[in-house]
Amino acid sequence: MAAVSSSRSLFKLLLPLLREPVRAFSRTAPAGGSVPHRAEGTGALTGAVDRFGGVTVQLSDAGLPADISESVFSDLLRDALVRWKAEGKVAVWLRVPISLSRCAAAASTHGFTFHHARHDHAVLALWIGEGQSRLPGFATHQIGVAGAVVDESNGKVLVVQDRNKTMNAWKFPGGLSDPGENIGATAVREVFEETGVRSEFRSLLSLRQQHNHPGAFGMSDMYIICRLSPLTYDINFCTQECLRCEWLELTELAKTSDTTPITARLARLLLHGLERGFDGIDLGLEELPAVYSGMFYQLYHRPIPQTLKS
Amino acid sequence: MAAVSSSRSLFKLLLPLLREPVRAFSRTAPAGGSVPHRAEGTGALTGAVDRFGGVTVQLSDAGLPADISESVFSDLLRDALVRWKAEGKVAVWLRVPISLSRCAAAASTHGFTFHHARHDHAVLALWIGEGQSRLPGFATHQIGVAGAVVDESNGKVLVVQDRNKTMNAWKFPGGLSDPGENIGATAVREVFEETGVRSEFRSLLSLRQQHNHPGAFGMSDMYIICRLSPLTYDINFCTQECLRCEWLELTELAKTSDTTPITARLARLLLHGLERGFDGIDLGLEELPAVYSGMFYQLYHRPIPQTLKS
Repeated sequence: MAAVSSSRSLFKLLLPLLREPVRAFSRTAPAGGSVPHRAEGTGALTGAVDRFGGVTVQLSDAGLPADISESVFSDLLRDALVRWKAEGKVAVWLRVPISLSRCAAAASTHGFTFHHARHDHAVLALWIGEGQSRLPGFATHQIGVAGAVVDESNGKVLVVQDRNKTMNAWKFPGGLSDPGENIGATAVREVFEETGVRSEFRSLLSLRQQHNHPGAFGMSDMYIICRLSPLTYDINFCTQECLRCEWLELTELAKTSDTTPITARLARLLLHGLERGFDGIDLGLEELPAVYSGMFYQLYHRPIPQTLKS
Repeated sequence: MAAVSSSRSLFKLLLPLLREPVRAFSRTAPAGGSVPHRAEGTGALTGAVDRFGGVTVQLSDAGLPADISESVFSDLLRDALVRWKAEGKVAVWLRVPISLSRCAAAASTHGFTFHHARHDHAVLALWIGEGQSRLPGFATHQIGVAGAVVDESNGKVLVVQDRNKTMNAWKFPGGLSDPGENIGATAVREVFEETGVRSEFRSLLSLRQQHNHPGAFGMSDMYIICRLSPLTYDINFCTQECLRCEWLELTELAKTSDTTPITARLARLLLHGLERGFDGIDLGLEELPAVYSGMFYQLYHRPIPQTLKS
């Protein structure tokens, strides 16, 4: 049986191009087709070519008149598409500043759709190669993180009841990760914001994946629960978000009906950890250098014995 | 010390509104301010109000002329903003079909920015309440999944070398999750697409979080490695994506320099599992019903003894 190629990874490296400044809008198409010209007026639309056969046009750097009409841009794009197809290009990316949004409408008449949009610009894409589109998608998940702050001295855990829920169930304080925020940092921050309790990250305990999430604009939700250790104990909870906040016995949380299935499940997991050692339930964190960037990433997994470690 | 409210969760429930059809563009503002009128022409822009004090306007259902100009829409929006602010609204959401994209440019002159865009529409937002914006963000992470298919009979694992990388390092086959696809399903699919080997999901082994990822349009990347069991053994690898594909000894993968740090790390974790039992390194999967939807979600965590299970 032949292996089928998904090939989405092929386009992963295309993206840095979307941030590069050199794109052009020239009066005549460049002779070689690869060196972008730059001129005011209604010349040919040109873009930068990547090694996957995609073309990226940054409209903000293309020298387009600020008041270019949808029909003029549509004509430019039509001509360019004919040229790019003849050249064997497989994909076209348009980065459209919000002030030139009318160009997105014009592009849609040629089959372009939104790939994503952020703040002050939208990115549209069109597959013009053979067969099915192999364009990569955009981010699909939001990350929510909760912190189970366990007081090992008395077997209690910090729980809250949301103010804005119809059912007042005990749960671990938590919320959405900010862009660029590490999982553990979200847990510590949200616990403090909701309860006033300072804590430190110990481990990752569980991960839940849920699709078509109503709180995620129909996208997917990843809900991660971390184990934290308390640094302070006094509760000063946020009355805007929470109705109640308490240090509750884990044994109580494990059996009460006033909680969510996942919280009850985690209470039992934590009880098991409290009795037999948290090393049986924890995923530890290590930072490792990223190969390509020199930056660090955070990796979570079960412990490896020192003898095997490296 | 006062607990600070993040309150992003407050807006989570606002989103289903973005899919509701009843929005209006009326010649006169509704008397009560809450029942939307509908009329062709250039009347007042109205929207649906949610319980968080946000207003959602669906431009596709607002009865706007298809050729409405940026300046006419801008005027409508200006008047509506004055009204919504006077009414104490805190946020405005505009859902803009791609064909009316010029309205996004007009909205940007009033401070609106893109919240997100997908396929044929963009969603813009503006915070008009007191203080800092409490609007929730959009999806921040792409999910990549790799499958470590371990042949327990001989201690070998299935590895590939990418065709499109400068360094030819052994790694586990994998790729990006499709929208709505479960983690285990991505692993099994990608392994088959890249190697031709059929397998089944056993457990989640590790999770890596990396921000500002060049392959994720500058967003964050979550890379999850699963343990799989082989159902077939013959390799028929995808020559478009892979340069090589082999069943390699885990002991060899753990010590070779021709691999990535994370793959070497996971090889050692798997060796440990092979020697002492995979129950020491696995996060198991269970499906639980979602409280609000009747749908199921997938939860991964360490095992809980039967006596504590429920």
